[in-house]
Amino acid sequence: MGECIFCKIIKGEIPAAKVYEDENVLAFLDIAPASKGHTLVIPKEHHELISDVPNEKLEKAIDVVKMLGQALLKDNDGFNVMQNNKRAAGQLVPHVHFHVIPRKNDDGLDVAQWKSTKYEEGEMEKVREKLMNLLAQAAVGHN
Amino acid sequence: MGECIFCKIIKGEIPAAKVYEDENVLAFLDIAPASKGHTLVIPKEHHELISDVPNEKLEKAIDVVKMLGQALLKDNDGFNVMQNNKRAAGQLVPHVHFHVIPRKNDDGLDVAQWKSTKYEEGEMEKVREKLMNLLAQAAVGHN
Repeated sequence: MGECIFCKIIKGEIPAAKVYEDENVLAFLDIAPASKGHTLVIPKEHHELISDVPNEKLEKAIDVVKMLGQALLKDNDGFNVMQNNKRAAGQLVPHVHFHVIPRKNDDGLDVAQWKSTKYEEGEMEKVREKLMNLLAQAAVGHN
Repeated sequence: MGECIFCKIIKGEIPAAKVYEDENVLAFLDIAPASKGHTLVIPKEHHELISDVPNEKLEKAIDVVKMLGQALLKDNDGFNVMQNNKRAAGQLVPHVHFHVIPRKNDDGLDVAQWKSTKYEEGEMEKVREKLMNLLAQAAVGHN
């Protein structure tokens, strides 16, 4: 994983404004933040997607996201947690990362603002059945 | 928590298109989806914010988010995971929930599209120090 910039940050080969680090997890400020204090939380073990991360490592990462949220709430009105998988979803660095974005009331940020669509009559049940089938397949290969 | 609509869904008092359920976690289709298949994953235990959820329950929820992501990737090009805390962050239902949003290449959805800001000279280090102080306070009360 020589080219992964987050792995290089973990190794100290690229500088970063680290706010938390332990054996499994690193947190550092995003250099192009949605708001000041926008932090990235990453498992140190290299995986591209959340769906690739072993449960044990993923759980350690989400616990740090939670702890960071507790900290941010002392000085903010709320926060968003966002984690994007694959380029189609806006993922820019292929090393799984949680965005933790501090929010103030009426800050006008365009985070968590999406247009919603509607299901046609009967469509929701079809989508549900398809997803349950996919989940059954995923569970077979789940570890 | 008699008024919480997600608690009512858990109890079966309000219908929902459930796609996964176990002792601790429920997943069901969002009725106003960003994309078809948009699913909400919730811990059954009622807490408003991710920062309120006991680690053990949070970890079970993120494991289901991961599993759902594995399933969605069989039929999509990517997915977003989003979790909003407090009204300032766009949280509408005060029962912690993870949005899991399937994505297709070039679907044009306005999810994970935010304008970034910049740190002034020296500002990033100040934000980092402040956040580390808040984290130290949070850690004292952490369980």
